[in-house]
Amino acid sequence: MNTVELIRKKRDGGVLSAEEIDFMISGLVKGAIPNYQFAAFLMASFLKGMNKAETATLTKSMLYSGKIIDLKSIPGFKIDKHSTGGVGDKTSLILAPIVAAAGINVPMISGRGLGHSGGTLDKLESIPGFKTNISIKEYKKVIKKCGAVLIGQTRSVAPADKIIYALRDVTGTVESIPLITGSIMSKKLAEGIDGLVLDVKTGSGAFMRTMNDAELLAKSLINTAKAFNKKVLAFITDMNQPLGNYIGNWLEIDESVKVLQGEVIDDLCTVTFTLSGAMIYLGGKAKSVNEGIEISKELIKNGKAFDKFLEIVKLQGGDTSFLTNPDKYPKSKYSEKIYCPVSGYLKSVDNYQIGVSALLLGAGRLVKEDIIDPKAGIIFHPKIGDKVKKGDLLAEIFTDQNLVIDSVKEEILNSCLFDKEKIAPVKLIKKLLS
Amino acid sequence: MNTVELIRKKRDGGVLSAEEIDFMISGLVKGAIPNYQFAAFLMASFLKGMNKAETATLTKSMLYSGKIIDLKSIPGFKIDKHSTGGVGDKTSLILAPIVAAAGINVPMISGRGLGHSGGTLDKLESIPGFKTNISIKEYKKVIKKCGAVLIGQTRSVAPADKIIYALRDVTGTVESIPLITGSIMSKKLAEGIDGLVLDVKTGSGAFMRTMNDAELLAKSLINTAKAFNKKVLAFITDMNQPLGNYIGNWLEIDESVKVLQGEVIDDLCTVTFTLSGAMIYLGGKAKSVNEGIEISKELIKNGKAFDKFLEIVKLQGGDTSFLTNPDKYPKSKYSEKIYCPVSGYLKSVDNYQIGVSALLLGAGRLVKEDIIDPKAGIIFHPKIGDKVKKGDLLAEIFTDQNLVIDSVKEEILNSCLFDKEKIAPVKLIKKLLS
Repeated sequence: MNTVELIRKKRDGGVLSAEEIDFMISGLVKGAIPNYQFAAFLMASFLKGMNKAETATLTKSMLYSGKIIDLKSIPGFKIDKHSTGGVGDKTSLILAPIVAAAGINVPMISGRGLGHSGGTLDKLESIPGFKTNISIKEYKKVIKKCGAVLIGQTRSVAPADKIIYALRDVTGTVESIPLITGSIMSKKLAEGIDGLVLDVKTGSGAFMRTMNDAELLAKSLINTAKAFNKKVLAFITDMNQPLGNYIGNWLEIDESVKVLQGEVIDDLCTVTFTLSGAMIYLGGKAKSVNEGIEISKELIKNGKAFDKFLEIVKLQGGDTSFLTNPDKYPKSKYSEKIYCPVSGYLKSVDNYQIGVSALLLGAGRLVKEDIIDPKAGIIFHPKIGDKVKKGDLLAEIFTDQNLVIDSVKEEILNSCLFDKEKIAPVKLIKKLLS
Repeated sequence: MNTVELIRKKRDGGVLSAEEIDFMISGLVKGAIPNYQFAAFLMASFLKGMNKAETATLTKSMLYSGKIIDLKSIPGFKIDKHSTGGVGDKTSLILAPIVAAAGINVPMISGRGLGHSGGTLDKLESIPGFKTNISIKEYKKVIKKCGAVLIGQTRSVAPADKIIYALRDVTGTVESIPLITGSIMSKKLAEGIDGLVLDVKTGSGAFMRTMNDAELLAKSLINTAKAFNKKVLAFITDMNQPLGNYIGNWLEIDESVKVLQGEVIDDLCTVTFTLSGAMIYLGGKAKSVNEGIEISKELIKNGKAFDKFLEIVKLQGGDTSFLTNPDKYPKSKYSEKIYCPVSGYLKSVDNYQIGVSALLLGAGRLVKEDIIDPKAGIIFHPKIGDKVKKGDLLAEIFTDQNLVIDSVKEEILNSCLFDKEKIAPVKLIKKLLS
């Protein structure tokens, strides 16, 4: 096989065989194929696409570039959820203890936040003492003990993805359905799971802004999961406004604890319970997603989900006293309130801008090397369709950096559009695909 | 400006501004843009194309990455010819002295052969003593003295092209009209010319195999030449069989000398005189291409063209005694004759295979580092449409490497198709574009 010939084949719209794709991926990982040749291959793949079989093969080659965690010694079904990310998306923090409390294993390898979008790892690390970089041995121990574990990507998991992702990032080849699929699925499949629930976000704060792109990605992820004989369901959910009201690392832990303690936050609970319900259904503990949703609600009501959360946090080294007594958590130096500038209905939110505002306050990263301030963030109050009055509380911001306050306040105000006409609330669960 | 944004812009089919293209080219040359980003940009440009203005800007940025030779001190019109290359294409060797003898300057920077296609430099260097790597100062001196000079690309000419071409070669982005245009024109414009005649070859031995691709390239080259206010004419000529009968470096010098001494080799003379006629016309020494052709024939007949050739060779250090007495040139160790296997008409020639056969005999390079045997090559006798009898002489091969002889003989036989039906001869000059 010849690298240039394979680049030309993809460039001309050809379909690559499993051997050919594996030649490219393993060549890159071994250093036999230089970055510049792989960059041309990425652009050709971006523009000419990959079919179902190629995407599955790509995923397989990326997956087998590293180790697959073997969880066979742990009895029971293993399931994870993957979300394409967004603003205020804290569902993992709530559903992992729910599903574990339902008797299903949740081995979860999560990522960090970058740009406008937060990351589960950063949120967990805002809990003092919580360790996310534990070994695979400890990972197995924790899941064996309590049914759930939440860690970061280890070096042994899909090393091809690290190289390819870094290259895609600088060559304008990020937004490609097959390449995104390979990146997501190679990491998820390495966890040793039996099933996967996908939450593909769409809207102004999502990676896939249009419904059409979200559906294409969901279908591609489902096809690939099925090619590996995994049980899978995908939801397309709304990301046109923050999920819940809290955006920022500790703030999102705080809001998750509220939900786990029984507080009803409509949109957040709807999306979270739908996902946990689907996980419980796929895990064989419910006859339908709806029954899984009811079980989820019950596990909140009887306190078992919150107890499970405390158990997980404790096993991973976290100080649970901050969860039972959130008021003792350190406060930001500055906090400011933003008020509605007019009366009417909230028509739309530029959710990407809200995410960027949280980042600027210290809650996120512009580049990988940035250090996060766990206290920083935003509480954003109204939902699209809500009736508001001039002077109502729109949002509160928390930061240690007073220099950004004025511009962030302006950004948040600019990202909200109000209308005199009544606006329908947003449909949260837009589609279920299987 | 941001490299990734510019890659994305081209990837999405956008039109880049002059500043944006220059940012990419100068960034590459300065080392500010790494090869992997430029490789992605090349593939995006390959697949999404570049319009007229972008192609002209690309050429300009590549041209100004190096020096433009200033020939203002030399009086009179300066013109060159560029051919896209082929098998047995020795027209430069004949037309440069013709046009110089007509009183027009011919400053010619040529390339080396690679793959199935020969290079003017290698042919010239087969003349003992002939120097092609002379300085720009000497280059000017030679052209001032005799009106023509034939050298290789110097380091100062379009360095961007060297980097980009090397990258295109390994990233499957060679066959792109705008990229080819930038490569050819940046080098030609650096010669300090006022006019250019283009010979775009089409057929089985050409880079552009189809008429459509050849026309697209010819138009792109013309547009770019015009954007730089150069006088330009382009011909699309046939490359479905060797031009003339001799293929190989010294062999082509030998055949060129025959033509310069008055021998009529139909196809070679037709193409060469058309190109030299066009150069004489653009140079203002004829009222039409046809008058330029007549002048060319006259300059052969009266011996002035051959005298000019001897003058050029002498000024560039070549031993002209081999030109006036070709029999004293060293002979290949082995020569073999190949005979027509059937009676009928020559229907087609796989001209690419003929070129590769000459290469295998020692006349060409598979990779840049290969050393050429100037004596090696092929004399291929019939033309498409010729009536042949079984046992007629089809070709003669010359080589020092006896191991390749049998396979080359077979290749040459296999590349010829014969038919019982009468076949029309090939049209040599397929189109004139201006």
